[in-house]
Amino acid sequence: MIWHNGALREGTTIALDAGDRGLLLGDGLFETVAVFNRTPFRLADHWDRMSLAADRLGIPLDRAVLDRATSALVSGSADDHGVLRITVTRGAGPRGLAPASDMTPTVLATLAPWRPDMAFRSVALATSSIRRNSGSPLSRIKSLGYLDNVLALREALDLGADDALLLNEAGSVACSSAANVFVVSGVRLLTPPIEDGVLPGITRALVLRHAAELGLSAAETTLTPADLRSADAAFLTNSVRLLDRVRRLDASDLGERDTEIVEAVSRLIADAVRRETGFGLRPFR
Amino acid sequence: MIWHNGALREGTTIALDAGDRGLLLGDGLFETVAVFNRTPFRLADHWDRMSLAADRLGIPLDRAVLDRATSALVSGSADDHGVLRITVTRGAGPRGLAPASDMTPTVLATLAPWRPDMAFRSVALATSSIRRNSGSPLSRIKSLGYLDNVLALREALDLGADDALLLNEAGSVACSSAANVFVVSGVRLLTPPIEDGVLPGITRALVLRHAAELGLSAAETTLTPADLRSADAAFLTNSVRLLDRVRRLDASDLGERDTEIVEAVSRLIADAVRRETGFGLRPFR
Repeated sequence: MIWHNGALREGTTIALDAGDRGLLLGDGLFETVAVFNRTPFRLADHWDRMSLAADRLGIPLDRAVLDRATSALVSGSADDHGVLRITVTRGAGPRGLAPASDMTPTVLATLAPWRPDMAFRSVALATSSIRRNSGSPLSRIKSLGYLDNVLALREALDLGADDALLLNEAGSVACSSAANVFVVSGVRLLTPPIEDGVLPGITRALVLRHAAELGLSAAETTLTPADLRSADAAFLTNSVRLLDRVRRLDASDLGERDTEIVEAVSRLIADAVRRETGFGLRPFR
Repeated sequence: MIWHNGALREGTTIALDAGDRGLLLGDGLFETVAVFNRTPFRLADHWDRMSLAADRLGIPLDRAVLDRATSALVSGSADDHGVLRITVTRGAGPRGLAPASDMTPTVLATLAPWRPDMAFRSVALATSSIRRNSGSPLSRIKSLGYLDNVLALREALDLGADDALLLNEAGSVACSSAANVFVVSGVRLLTPPIEDGVLPGITRALVLRHAAELGLSAAETTLTPADLRSADAAFLTNSVRLLDRVRRLDASDLGERDTEIVEAVSRLIADAVRRETGFGLRPFR
């Protein structure tokens, strides 16, 4: 089922204005939200992020509409768990880059299955030849322009890896094709700051906010690929995958290193999911 | 009228699969072609560029389909002149960044009016805060991810300028929001190389190829903003706007400088249009 501009629709297609700027120019935003036990996880955080980005783009966003789309899809679903995707475009307008002043956003939402094997994986990363652009506001918002990430993932898969590591134009670590990067160094959790070309991830924020409960100090700091290779451990965070441990970066094996802290952070995330949705995840068992 | 996946449609909407990766991920390409006297100008060059980009993305492209869409729209149009836009997406697939192997591209084409006041304008540029990413292949292909350009143009318009000047991550000149940049230095025409994060423009190529006929030497070379400010003149090229003279860059007035060469290049472009389409343009009269 699809939710499009105010109503649930059967089938797989929508009627879209051929001038929709989301399709023509990538002029829009999206959020991907994990749903456990029919409860979207950290939904308010996703809407907060989307609202900030919509303000940045000048797209009017009605959170009540996002909530209605979410409720309609979740209550109409045959599955208890899912992956909700909400897409908001600036809407249809005249030819050219400059939008009209009176455009009505397009809102499209879908719910796909979520399976336990999507989360808490062990991944090999390959460093991408494509650089993340910290000099663009789009590196910090979830806009529709995801083709760099698509190409980076394809490149990594072609190399036999599971995901790509993207560096920014200065050669610092930014992110994977769809996840934030953390390294473990002693009792510290380090992740690149947003200014390095990083999407402010919802799971990233959860880890940063609650690391102290594990006796860990978490901080945002610029990281080099060498920092990853020499780290005690490394992991990725993402709203659907939750946490992936990094077992390899290019030719460097990270798999046999300290896994205790990565497992503790995984339980921290699983505990938040259980507390807020009632769904019990069993990371790395 | 709209051409969509094989046929002309009345109205303004298309039936699009809600999983279309063009809409969801910016996973696709487009071309914008000026049509004069019902003749698309330099159409083969546009298809060549799109074919190369499609190969880079792994999207199968059928030029016969592009030609059929073009013919159908042009022959069905009430106007002799127009702006043809052809959009090709990778098509609809499963959730996530990795495409399926058997996807059918979506092809969408529209024809909008072209008016003489779109071409041979005089423009003021404002340097954008957004940097062009030469470290991404997308800086060199016409992908659907145009939101950086949209934001850069909006920023320039807010500053009272007509277009944005985008620098790359190294601070070198890349392009405007939708045009290539040239400077005039004596009898030389200089434009940044593709590697600096530049789309290989069709009009750019025309100027580079034929400058010698004007007694000018044309070359690709990295340019700084200071090179623009101290140039004898500067201009932009674009398939619809053809050539815009740059009269101002931020606080620097370029308007009273050597205009003879800019006018000669404008006539070179107008002559090519006349020769290939029969349409007589009168630049800067």
